[in-house]
This record gives sequence, C-alpha cells and structure tokens, in this order.
Amino acid sequence: MNYTIRKAKRKDVPTIYSLIQELAVFEKEPEAVEITVQDLEEDGFGEQPKFEVFIAENNEKVLGMALFYYRYSTWKGKTIHLEDLIVKEDARGKGVGRLLYNEVLKYAHQLQVRRVEWAVLNWNTPAVEFYKNSGADIFEDWRIVQMNQQQLDDYIKHI
Amino acid sequence: MNYTIRKAKRKDVPTIYSLIQELAVFEKEPEAVEITVQDLEEDGFGEQPKFEVFIAENNEKVLGMALFYYRYSTWKGKTIHLEDLIVKEDARGKGVGRLLYNEVLKYAHQLQVRRVEWAVLNWNTPAVEFYKNSGADIFEDWRIVQMNQQQLDDYIKHI
Repeated sequence: MNYTIRKAKRKDVPTIYSLIQELAVFEKEPEAVEITVQDLEEDGFGEQPKFEVFIAENNEKVLGMALFYYRYSTWKGKTIHLEDLIVKEDARGKGVGRLLYNEVLKYAHQLQVRRVEWAVLNWNTPAVEFYKNSGADIFEDWRIVQMNQQQLDDYIKHI
Repeated sequence: MNYTIRKAKRKDVPTIYSLIQELAVFEKEPEAVEITVQDLEEDGFGEQPKFEVFIAENNEKVLGMALFYYRYSTWKGKTIHLEDLIVKEDARGKGVGRLLYNEVLKYAHQLQVRRVEWAVLNWNTPAVEFYKNSGADIFEDWRIVQMNQQQLDDYIKHI
C-alpha cells in the first residue's frame, strides 16, 4: 500500500480525537480522556500551538498519527517529546507506526534538537524491542511521577 | 531562617546556570551540560519563554530553584512538567526544597492544570518517599526512552 505522511490541519481534529479515544479504550481507560475536540482545536491549531501532529493516510483515509511537542532540558536545551504514536487497529502490522516514528525523528534531526524523548510501558515487549533496535536508550532507573488534579487539591489544602 | 520565593528574572541566569552545573557535578555528569548562559537567557527570558523558574533566597542569596515548563497530555490537556528542583549543597536539609516544591504545586493549582509531572531516580529513596508522602503517584510500569543527537544521526542514516 502507498502511505503518505503530512502535517495535521485543523480539519483533522475530530479524527485526532477519535484516535486518542481509540488508544484510551485499548488501554482500558476510556474515562481518562477529559479533553474535548474544542480543546484540541484551540490547543493545537491556535496562535501558539501546544503540540504538532503528523498524520499517516492512504487514499485520504487516516491510518494513524504521531503527536509531539517541545520540552526543555537544562542540559541539552530544546527537545522533542513524542506523546502519542497511534495506529488504527485495522491498519496495524503494515509499517505505518514505523513510518510515523521515522517522520518524527527526521523532523527532530532537521531541527537539530539534541534529544527526542518518550515513554513506553515496560511490559510492552514489541515496543521496547522496536525502540531498542532503533538505537534509543531505555532508562531503567528513572520513574515517572505524577500528581493529578485531585491529588493536587488534597496536597494544597494541607500546606 | 526566612526564605522568600520569587519568579526568576533575566539577571538570575548566571545563577541558574551555576545551579544546573552543580547538579550535573553532583550526578557525576559535568560534561553533559551542553547549554550555555546565552541559551538560557534566550530560551527562558525571550518573547516566548520555553520554561519558568522559581528562585528561593535568603537575604538576596540564592539557595535553590525550581525550573518547569508546560507539556500536553492528549487525555488531560495542558500540564506542568517540573524539570529541575535544585537546592545548593550548603542549604540542604532546611526545607528549601519543600518550599520550592510547594510553590510549583500552588502555581499549578492556580492555573488549574490537570496534572503535574516529573521524574525521579528510583534509588533516590528520600526523594521517592518525599513525593509519595505528598500524595504523588510513582509509575513503576513506565520507562523513559531517549534518543540523543548521535543516536538520531545514526538512525537517520539508515532509513
């Protein structure tokens, strides 16, 4: 099949939203998606976009996306964070994920950022192996820490 | 002692840089700091700042800082990422770190972000316990993945 990759436009937001929902259902957390289509439109396609998206498609049918944004390392400067790499269930196993991955890395290379970063579930062996084979480092010593809005509320009340 | 917390200004950049260096030396990676004072000035105090900093001081002597920026969750929207929480060696054990931590969380609470996120070394038990006691979640299943500029170069050559 012939795939094309392009930057997402505002009109793609409903599709982007449905891909996000599809991933949440796949991860058995459909209720975790608090964002709306309108949020995504404003946040991604307003005057100061908070993220960018590459879309993979075949004959104008969207098969997947890579959503990323910029972070900042106090050692390396501007970096790229790959937040979501999602391929529609019926399009998996055809190299679409790899194409999207490559596109993000080529883009990072062009921008000369000193680091691209993302997160992986340690039991997702195919993903871990894929990333290792591409030359990425998996950091075993670091843990991600999060405080959600409820935890934040609770903490703030007691300080 | 009487500590004050304030937002950093451009004039604080040399101090911010020296705190970053101090942390890198402490982590035995002094050569990892590729950023310069000029980068930090442009990136943090230009027209579109890539990060924000809170400074803790006592009688105008800087004791530590918290450096953070915004990220984007496709489930939660805008989030805050706490990149560095650094207290000068001679000011540790006096509650300066907690004050900076609280300030970032209060700021996140005011902004009504749905998540604050950061990373911790899993063998840094005092830090892990501190975060847990504050109500944060430590995610055991997720791993941070990175590709640095050299790895990116190598990968791009072969695709």
